[in-house]
Amino acid sequence: MIKCAFYLTPDGELLDQLGIEQIRHFLATGKGLLWLDIEEVTNEDTELLSNVFCFHPLAVADCISKNIHPPKIDDFEHYLFIIVHGINYHIESEVVETTELALFLGKNYVVTSHDVPLGSISSVLDRVRKDGRLMRRGADFLAHDLLDALVDNIMPTIEEMNDKSVAIETEALHEPERQTLISIMQHKRSILALTRVMLPQREIVNRLSRGEYALISERAQIYYRNIYDHLVRIEMLILGLRDMAESVVNTYLSSVSNRMNEVMRVLTLIATIFIPLTFIAGIYGMNFANMPELEWRYGYFGILIVMAVIGICLVIYFKRKRWV
Amino acid sequence: MIKCAFYLTPDGELLDQLGIEQIRHFLATGKGLLWLDIEEVTNEDTELLSNVFCFHPLAVADCISKNIHPPKIDDFEHYLFIIVHGINYHIESEVVETTELALFLGKNYVVTSHDVPLGSISSVLDRVRKDGRLMRRGADFLAHDLLDALVDNIMPTIEEMNDKSVAIETEALHEPERQTLISIMQHKRSILALTRVMLPQREIVNRLSRGEYALISERAQIYYRNIYDHLVRIEMLILGLRDMAESVVNTYLSSVSNRMNEVMRVLTLIATIFIPLTFIAGIYGMNFANMPELEWRYGYFGILIVMAVIGICLVIYFKRKRWV
Amino acid sequence: MIKCAFYLTPDGELLDQLGIEQIRHFLATGKGLLWLDIEEVTNEDTELLSNVFCFHPLAVADCISKNIHPPKIDDFEHYLFIIVHGINYHIESEVVETTELALFLGKNYVVTSHDVPLGSISSVLDRVRKDGRLMRRGADFLAHDLLDALVDNIMPTIEEMNDKSVAIETEALHEPERQTLISIMQHKRSILALTRVMLPQREIVNRLSRGEYALISERAQIYYRNIYDHLVRIEMLILGLRDMAESVVNTYLSSVSNRMNEVMRVLTLIATIFIPLTFIAGIYGMNFANMPELEWRYGYFGILIVMAVIGICLVIYFKRKRWV
Amino acid sequence: MIKCAFYLTPDGELLDQLGIEQIRHFLATGKGLLWLDIEEVTNEDTELLSNVFCFHPLAVADCISKNIHPPKIDDFEHYLFIIVHGINYHIESEVVETTELALFLGKNYVVTSHDVPLGSISSVLDRVRKDGRLMRRGADFLAHDLLDALVDNIMPTIEEMNDKSVAIETEALHEPERQTLISIMQHKRSILALTRVMLPQREIVNRLSRGEYALISERAQIYYRNIYDHLVRIEMLILGLRDMAESVVNTYLSSVSNRMNEVMRVLTLIATIFIPLTFIAGIYGMNFANMPELEWRYGYFGILIVMAVIGICLVIYFKRKRWV
Amino acid sequence: MIKCAFYLTPDGELLDQLGIEQIRHFLATGKGLLWLDIEEVTNEDTELLSNVFCFHPLAVADCISKNIHPPKIDDFEHYLFIIVHGINYHIESEVVETTELALFLGKNYVVTSHDVPLGSISSVLDRVRKDGRLMRRGADFLAHDLLDALVDNIMPTIEEMNDKSVAIETEALHEPERQTLISIMQHKRSILALTRVMLPQREIVNRLSRGEYALISERAQIYYRNIYDHLVRIEMLILGLRDMAESVVNTYLSSVSNRMNEVMRVLTLIATIFIPLTFIAGIYGMNFANMPELEWRYGYFGILIVMAVIGICLVIYFKRKRWV
Repeated sequence: MIKCAFYLTPDGELLDQLGIEQIRHFLATGKGLLWLDIEEVTNEDTELLSNVFCFHPLAVADCISKNIHPPKIDDFEHYLFIIVHGINYHIESEVVETTELALFLGKNYVVTSHDVPLGSISSVLDRVRKDGRLMRRGADFLAHDLLDALVDNIMPTIEEMNDKSVAIETEALHEPERQTLISIMQHKRSILALTRVMLPQREIVNRLSRGEYALISERAQIYYRNIYDHLVRIEMLILGLRDMAESVVNTYLSSVSNRMNEVMRVLTLIATIFIPLTFIAGIYGMNFANMPELEWRYGYFGILIVMAVIGICLVIYFKRKRWV
Repeated sequence: MIKCAFYLTPDGELLDQLGIEQIRHFLATGKGLLWLDIEEVTNEDTELLSNVFCFHPLAVADCISKNIHPPKIDDFEHYLFIIVHGINYHIESEVVETTELALFLGKNYVVTSHDVPLGSISSVLDRVRKDGRLMRRGADFLAHDLLDALVDNIMPTIEEMNDKSVAIETEALHEPERQTLISIMQHKRSILALTRVMLPQREIVNRLSRGEYALISERAQIYYRNIYDHLVRIEMLILGLRDMAESVVNTYLSSVSNRMNEVMRVLTLIATIFIPLTFIAGIYGMNFANMPELEWRYGYFGILIVMAVIGICLVIYFKRKRWV
Repeated sequence: MIKCAFYLTPDGELLDQLGIEQIRHFLATGKGLLWLDIEEVTNEDTELLSNVFCFHPLAVADCISKNIHPPKIDDFEHYLFIIVHGINYHIESEVVETTELALFLGKNYVVTSHDVPLGSISSVLDRVRKDGRLMRRGADFLAHDLLDALVDNIMPTIEEMNDKSVAIETEALHEPERQTLISIMQHKRSILALTRVMLPQREIVNRLSRGEYALISERAQIYYRNIYDHLVRIEMLILGLRDMAESVVNTYLSSVSNRMNEVMRVLTLIATIFIPLTFIAGIYGMNFANMPELEWRYGYFGILIVMAVIGICLVIYFKRKRWV
Repeated sequence: MIKCAFYLTPDGELLDQLGIEQIRHFLATGKGLLWLDIEEVTNEDTELLSNVFCFHPLAVADCISKNIHPPKIDDFEHYLFIIVHGINYHIESEVVETTELALFLGKNYVVTSHDVPLGSISSVLDRVRKDGRLMRRGADFLAHDLLDALVDNIMPTIEEMNDKSVAIETEALHEPERQTLISIMQHKRSILALTRVMLPQREIVNRLSRGEYALISERAQIYYRNIYDHLVRIEMLILGLRDMAESVVNTYLSSVSNRMNEVMRVLTLIATIFIPLTFIAGIYGMNFANMPELEWRYGYFGILIVMAVIGICLVIYFKRKRWV
Repeated sequence: MIKCAFYLTPDGELLDQLGIEQIRHFLATGKGLLWLDIEEVTNEDTELLSNVFCFHPLAVADCISKNIHPPKIDDFEHYLFIIVHGINYHIESEVVETTELALFLGKNYVVTSHDVPLGSISSVLDRVRKDGRLMRRGADFLAHDLLDALVDNIMPTIEEMNDKSVAIETEALHEPERQTLISIMQHKRSILALTRVMLPQREIVNRLSRGEYALISERAQIYYRNIYDHLVRIEMLILGLRDMAESVVNTYLSSVSNRMNEVMRVLTLIATIFIPLTFIAGIYGMNFANMPELEWRYGYFGILIVMAVIGICLVIYFKRKRWV
């Protein structure tokens, strides 16, 4: 479904809502700049991509397919086919999902295709609609703006994940429940999945910024380099998240074990104090005929005092040894 | 045992069931396209490969040998010798086995050899039989179709392994038995074995797609690149499986320890509550002559109440400390 | 806010507190050496950087932005834009923070920009103020001095972190508390963060010393190489810190477990000694009519001696087994 | 001590037991092919290597020295000096030992030197003795045959180690003793040592097969490539062994802990059931004057039934909770 | 402090104890070979290095500084400046310390500088003193001899560390004390520190042996290659030490846990046997009026026998279950 079809004429006029015939016409002239955004590719769109733009069948197939494609860049001489990933983090479900953006970059056109609405695309769209300047610098700059918006959209997610890390760590430290471990593991796996998507992405932008492709002008390369720097920063932050997740696992395990130890220690101490006392009580519960203490007037009170002394001594000893 | 011997004449006619003499003839003409599929190499087949096709003795030896050969690609100038692996996952035995496909790719022929029936080969075979178009694009495209079918067959296995991961995790979390650990270890080793086979495979397809070999036409390279992209995706999925397996081990160990802790805690609490009470009972079981409480009318009931109060206080204390 | 604006005229005279017009003039002449240090970039400064120096908007944007930028080096032909990191270690908060220094290196000027006051910049500033010699060797040497001061400032922090490592290890060994683990984890994460900043930094200085940039004279390269060697040493020290942190985690866990074991062992031993004795007392507390020992004259004392002997024997046995 | 000194004359005649003078003569002619095998280098042999063959003193020193030399290949222009390792696995002592083979490969001679008898050398020796064909293809092919025999000899060891892995795993699972851990650790270290020797070996054979050395003819390279493929397979098997060893450690630790848990659980349950019962017995052992139950006719039997009911209830409760 | 100043004249005469003027003279002639060894650089020596030899100030500064410098090689065209590390292992303090050797290698001189006396330098010194031959092959060979002696001196340390590893392992297995873990950790850190020094060292010698520097003649390169091979061997041994240290940590932890388990198991068994028996004694200690067994003539002895039977049965049961 075509979401937008902008055309900036060489005269600087911005046309919207082009029909297929117009698109075919403008492409033939080779002038101006065309931006086509497609959401959920329909059969009609496939026709357009295959027959009007004459994109390679494999690239078109990638646009149609609902599978996840790792980030990549294919050079078809007259156009570049780029797949990049944004993030879609559902904080409630605690699962990171990446959203794909397929982008065809030609000399005088940019075609974007995605399955779900992307905030970054919409924001660029709005800015173009408000004022066409964004498209005046050429196709490579427009593609840059789209990628830049996509990458910028990653940052808030990273921050949310960071907050989540801190929250999980606090929970792991103070109230380690069985559920906590599952959260930690899920969180860690989210981070690892993120790393695996971001790393090739960085490599792709690096290649775009290195002058490897004729379609990216030298003036634009430095701007692509800027996206690259952003991705490097994002990677560093993700690595930080990973270290944190790693340490949270340790904290959790240690916290669970600490808590258990604490319980066991106190309980064992109580048992240990009463066992000798019960033994003494047991002695004077024996029925021997000749047990002089039993006849003493204050034998009973004496033995109670002895027991109290022993109990108190044990408590003091344990305190000294810092076992309590 | 020759499973199929197709020959597409330059006129577009599809011949099947060729004899050795015909094969020799067609190879000599250097025209058309020949596809020979061999299952379980017999002595006769060895003859054919060595004398008619004149393949290098080492390559023929690799076809005959029942050993496992890591994926590789050998360039013998007039033909390429490629070994790739598909997967044969027996969900019951929980062991991943890879199946080898040896493939000779010449200018106008493709020879495939394998020990066990391969679903991917059969499917291509059926499609050729139904309509010869598949062979019209040349040997490099035919080899591509075979490799593509092989790689596509890997995906369902990955999904099955994913399901198994989830099942094992649930088991590890809720009913960790000794058997669970063995399953986890086996599963993890399957995944590692898979990684080790897939990585060089990816490298091989990468080399095929880079124009390193003259036998792969430029037009075909982009299609090999597509297989490469599939393998990258598979690798990402396998890495995800690996992370999951890693976290399942942790979940299992933590789950076992949690369960043990739970048991020990409750039991120790019971012991701890009764030990002081038993001590009190022990005191009034002593046989001292002068124990005033024993003579009190409601001494017995009083002490029962005292015991109950102590017991209840301890339970409340433990509850407060969240030890129960 | 411009902190300093030095200009060394070709005649060797050192001017301070230049105005914008003067700066514009000196830059136009292309002679002498200008050093501008900016702390907390204001709008005015941005004007200066963009319009007088004509720096690339992206570089200027990096100076203004409060985000953390990973170390990098951008070559804009007429000038280099370098971002490097110093350390700001707050020993109390136990968190390592790196401070950014952005540096423009032109043929006859050096512009530095940072958000917080940097000790290394101030020290170079003082030395220039005292005697202008430092600026006589050219822009590349001045940039070297600034980087060198920055790198030298890292060493004391490393040493402090080392002291902290030792302190934490001692604590982990002798008084492992829950708080200790948090310190260890935080410390470890600080070290990892440091590693991630230092590694690209080393690579940047390496590129500066390899003659990759025309702005660095051959004579200066060996001095940049010297900074590189310092960074290699710092990296080795950080790796040592990392090993130490790793081993401290192990020490902590083992220490906690040792302490727990010790407590449990002693307490269990006490319980074990008294349980058989209590059993004996229990036997003679039974009310059977016919229990000959009860009537013996020294039965009671005899049984006390028997109990003492059993208790002593058990203690000796445990000692021998080295359980106490 | 010279074990064999074969010379294949250009006429195809095979001479054995050459003297030093003959060797010197044949080397001078530069025709035919000479194979000299030395076991435990004597002073005489050193003379021969240094003065007749004129090998570099460092290479000769490596032959004499009893130290272990990592696999390597040195190119002395007129000859190659290769050190490779076979395996000598003593299943009883459970230690993998590698045995060194030093090999000089010249245009028309191969000199092998080793300290202990090597099965692979003997087998090639026997085959040459039986029929000289093996030497007819030139020095590079003879060297290939020797290396191939050495590498083939590694496979049985790998299989033995695999069997051992399975045996250790079974032991770790069902009868984990302290001795088991030592076996596992030793086994793991054997595997790691093996990895470290095999990796550079693979690299050496790779270089031999890449046409880097003029002494290896193009026709022979593909055969060296075959050895390389074998080494890749061996490496994959060793990595599999390593994964297995890793998982066996986990299995062992988990198995020990499981067993301990089982013991503790059952014992604690017994204690927990009897503690409340003993408490009840303690109550009715108190000597209060007014304890109505004591006077009841069936008080005793009633309390016995109450105790039985409590005991049975606890057992049922524990069973339900799956603690037994 | 100059330790030695040898000069081998072109005529083969060996002069010792040269003065500064003589050194200046001989350097100017450019003939013969000069070896200067400096221990603990004094101001006078600094003068000599800076003004007579005209070494670069940064290289001289590295000689003076007491800091640790990672191994490196700097090419100053007319001379090489090399820093390498030997080992100084204090077996008592259990800490590996590396000792630095700074070496200037010119066309006709070698200058060595170190802070502490080095055994390897002394041994070469003695050999030169005894007979000048060692200096006859030129500066590159002299530098080789010095490096070779330094590297050879590492081997005994590796062996000592190996012995220590075995000793620690035995201790960890049979008498794991808290002190043991500290030893293990220290030992492991020593090994890691060693690895980090040795790795760049190997790279440096590799570069010296590759013909990268004109000052090393082709004939000498093969000898440097020999040192490289030694370093490869040392690295393999260090990696072996590392694996061992890793496994010792596991052994220690498992050993501690085993020992604790053993204690707990035996003690818990004792408790478990006596608890039911004490319960029985408690029953017959109850004061019910109607307890027929109490009146039986042999009730007491009967119950003693019953108790003995129960105790023995439990012991047999535990034995069968292999819990004792």
